Amino acid sequence: VTPYEELRALLQRYARAVDQRDVDGLAALFHPEATITGARGPQGLDEWLDTLRAPRAFPQSMHMLGDPIIELSEADGTAHLDCYAVVYQLGDQAQKQGDLTLGIRYADQAVLYEGHWVFRSRAAQTLWMR
Amino acid sequence: VTPYEELRALLQRYARAVDQRDVDGLAALFHPEATITGARGPQGLDEWLDTLRAPRAFPQSMHMLGDPIIELSEADGTAHLDCYAVVYQLGDQAQKQGDLTLGIRYADQAVLYEGHWVFRSRAAQTLWMR
Amino acid sequence: VTPYEELRALLQRYARAVDQRDVDGLAALFHPEATITGARGPQGLDEWLDTLRAPRAFPQSMHMLGDPIIELSEADGTAHLDCYAVVYQLGDQAQKQGDLTLGIRYADQAVLYEGHWVFRSRAAQTLWMR
Repeated sequence: VTPYEELRALLQRYARAVDQRDVDGLAALFHPEATITGARGPQGLDEWLDTLRAPRAFPQSMHMLGDPIIELSEADGTAHLDCYAVVYQLGDQAQKQGDLTLGIRYADQAVLYEGHWVFRSRAAQTLWMR
Repeated sequence: VTPYEELRALLQRYARAVDQRDVDGLAALFHPEATITGARGPQGLDEWLDTLRAPRAFPQSMHMLGDPIIELSEADGTAHLDCYAVVYQLGDQAQKQGDLTLGIRYADQAVLYEGHWVFRSRAAQTLWMR
Repeated sequence: VTPYEELRALLQRYARAVDQRDVDGLAALFHPEATITGARGPQGLDEWLDTLRAPRAFPQSMHMLGDPIIELSEADGTAHLDCYAVVYQLGDQAQKQGDLTLGIRYADQAVLYEGHWVFRSRAAQTLWMR
């Protein structure tokens, strides 16, 4: 398996884990010292995982990712990923809660850590929301 | 061409064929003994293709697929695919028919058959619809 | 880096550049004698780039691309790409301008030119719009 395949799978495993609210599964995709930057500003991994354990505003989500642009430094065991996503935050229709759809661009640094590619840092930029 | 490329192309050829209602093209992407599991439960290939020959509820569709997670057993000539999709079922606007949008997760087993990768089984799980 | 990776990156770089209205960045992705065929019919590269410099009907866009089907002739340094896209043309909400969403299928010929894969021709077929 090439690093390119492994890096694509890393992104997709993130989508599955976050949509299933599998916090332990998510943790395994990150370097222990990872930094995650989103609407709340930069967070360490444990802090960020705690926010995911808290009740969510939407009961269901789907993270549809585009193909990443992968810039690989195989010698260093690092890669930069630039990935578009459309994120569907699906409301509770029984409660007449609407949906929220977001266009997001992820900028990631991935590293080889204990034999696997993991996220060393991830920054999510919201391009639009509806 | 690597098996990874061929498996990605298999998924995309499925999307083109199903959106073009190309039933013969679809048939060529499946093993003759394939099982397809969707809203109607498990179906054999011929039975499933017959349902595609029947009139459709929506005149047009587009199957936008995410990147698959590919677990390849090259020695066995088998692969498991896990693929997100957003499926646009587009209504007839002249008839004021609305659209239906579905979030789907496909779980596929693909096999090498007569030199090509084909679907041996495919299960579609509808995650959400709007 | 394989040609398959480079061709996927070419498509994604197109999406980034067109969404950022980076006309010079777009120009670098095309062969100087490229033909681009869209709603306006076939255009040469310079003519097409001029249309992109003109004021746009929508202030923001996002080009979400599916995985391409890549047919590579490595000996010739050419490739055919067949790529689905959902294009979000995002209106100015302060002006109560609505959004336009389009389903598009791109048929591209790419060539190796000065050591890089670039578009030699690109035809965009609008499958649906909402």
